Amino acid sequence: MQNSIKHIYDYISNDLSQVDQTIKLCVSNRDNTIKLISDYLLEAGGKRLRPALTIMSAKLFGYNGNNHIKIATAVEFIHSATLLHDDVVDESKLRRGNLTAHQKWGNKRSILVGDFLFSQAFMMMVDTKSLPVLEVLSKAAAIIAEGEVMQLNVINNIKLSREQYIKIVSAKTAELFAAACKAGAIIAEQNEETWQLMYDLGMNIGIAFQIIDDILDYNANVKKLGKNIGDDFYEGKVTLPTIITYEQAITKEKKKIIEIFNLPEKTKEDFNLFRELMYKYKAEAIVTKLASEFINNCHKILDKLPDNKVRNMFKETLDYQIKRVF
Amino acid sequence: MQNSIKHIYDYISNDLSQVDQTIKLCVSNRDNTIKLISDYLLEAGGKRLRPALTIMSAKLFGYNGNNHIKIATAVEFIHSATLLHDDVVDESKLRRGNLTAHQKWGNKRSILVGDFLFSQAFMMMVDTKSLPVLEVLSKAAAIIAEGEVMQLNVINNIKLSREQYIKIVSAKTAELFAAACKAGAIIAEQNEETWQLMYDLGMNIGIAFQIIDDILDYNANVKKLGKNIGDDFYEGKVTLPTIITYEQAITKEKKKIIEIFNLPEKTKEDFNLFRELMYKYKAEAIVTKLASEFINNCHKILDKLPDNKVRNMFKETLDYQIKRVF
Repeated sequence: MQNSIKHIYDYISNDLSQVDQTIKLCVSNRDNTIKLISDYLLEAGGKRLRPALTIMSAKLFGYNGNNHIKIATAVEFIHSATLLHDDVVDESKLRRGNLTAHQKWGNKRSILVGDFLFSQAFMMMVDTKSLPVLEVLSKAAAIIAEGEVMQLNVINNIKLSREQYIKIVSAKTAELFAAACKAGAIIAEQNEETWQLMYDLGMNIGIAFQIIDDILDYNANVKKLGKNIGDDFYEGKVTLPTIITYEQAITKEKKKIIEIFNLPEKTKEDFNLFRELMYKYKAEAIVTKLASEFINNCHKILDKLPDNKVRNMFKETLDYQIKRVF
Repeated sequence: MQNSIKHIYDYISNDLSQVDQTIKLCVSNRDNTIKLISDYLLEAGGKRLRPALTIMSAKLFGYNGNNHIKIATAVEFIHSATLLHDDVVDESKLRRGNLTAHQKWGNKRSILVGDFLFSQAFMMMVDTKSLPVLEVLSKAAAIIAEGEVMQLNVINNIKLSREQYIKIVSAKTAELFAAACKAGAIIAEQNEETWQLMYDLGMNIGIAFQIIDDILDYNANVKKLGKNIGDDFYEGKVTLPTIITYEQAITKEKKKIIEIFNLPEKTKEDFNLFRELMYKYKAEAIVTKLASEFINNCHKILDKLPDNKVRNMFKETLDYQIKRVF
């Protein structure tokens, strides 16, 4: 945790502890495999960013019940379930610096425990007795799955447009951020206009977050990011840094990039070659600027929301996102 | 469809058509892969047994709204999602006589489309605005996943007890039958005692159904069953026919059975050898008798429920289950 947002996590640490306890309670008294994998995943040092958004959203409107804990837990369960399934789909070896669950326990168990966590998310939501919360989160779960399928269908397609990329990212990543924020406003009994503002806020945070994650895949070291550098590249995932590099490249380089992305197996040499082109065209700076635009949208939305301590914390979190790149 | 229960399907055919239309509507306007796989799966000639149970349960209590269609659709979505994930987990090649989805489109798409269908199930349930329905079905989904994990953990363990087998079958199969029946009673505004009766009814139907399916894995031909004969055996799934055979076998045969089940790859020869032992000990007859006990439980439960045309249809469906073996 960088010092700059430590006070925010301190402010919600009691709520986040309750989320952790609720998670633990749900997987205790269950089949041992479920307990093992869930514990492994949930204790692997995730940032709890999505549940934090739900908690902060509820607090932004002065909510002081305890349904936000249930929703935050449900959001984390959905996130964990998609992580388990994504890692199987992506064949990833590392997650947050640890072996992925499917490397440790096999694909089969990862798929089934993912299904279990997914169901637990819904049980938790039912417990809030809020149909609008159930609606926004079940819809989000469907859109996330659809986004993952869309991403799978454009693997190695370097000609992906910026718009298509944003569409995929909105679905596979930002939708859950949006739902997490909106659910906070629902539970705090705000009007539908405010629900929509919070949804838009989460959507813009989520897109910026994913764009920055995609930059980090080309510049972070494993220790900082907790996953292998170049994972996206080797898997043929076309992200904004690759799209921008391809856009800027001259014809000869474009041909080479297409050649590389058509390879069934990419080498370290391919990676270095591609990264040189990224540096040459300052793709990182261009992409960071694009991420900043989504962060700016967030600030504009926040300016329409209650002016209080929590709103300032939201704003600080946004600045922290951009700083992750440097 | 055997002639003996055709009139039952005729009686609910209008409702089942509405379920099919609702399913189609949910996957239209979605990513093409989702549409393709969902259509393939949902049009592959499934019996729609689980949605039929929800429809019949609602009709048993004279329900004449349309929420039963939504619930039946949700039940079929949950079933389809688990089929997609199961086939990946089991590495099955055939389902209802067709190539399985993961053979046709790959594991990754099967996992993600399964997640999508699962989410659609919840969206459909939210649409009924019934929290008890959401509760029973989200709980069922968690129990199903747990049952699948339990099954995975006892692969090749020929020393599995009858009780453990029933526990696994109750979770992985019968829980959805139970939830499908209970949801029908909920939507028809029955009291909680009746909900429980319907849950117990579905549970007993589901256990009998799975036991019979497990017998058929050893005696049906591919054409009749729509899957490969011996699938369970080759996958090392320990089912009631194998448990009973092992129980009856003499020490020398027990040793041989353990040897076979410890093989990482079982051959056709192993299968034939094991099936001879099954015949020798009349395992099929013993297992069929055990299935009959669960069917008898169903009759006893049904006798406590409204005496009408639909109740008779339930009873005929039960008899049909047992006849599947012959």
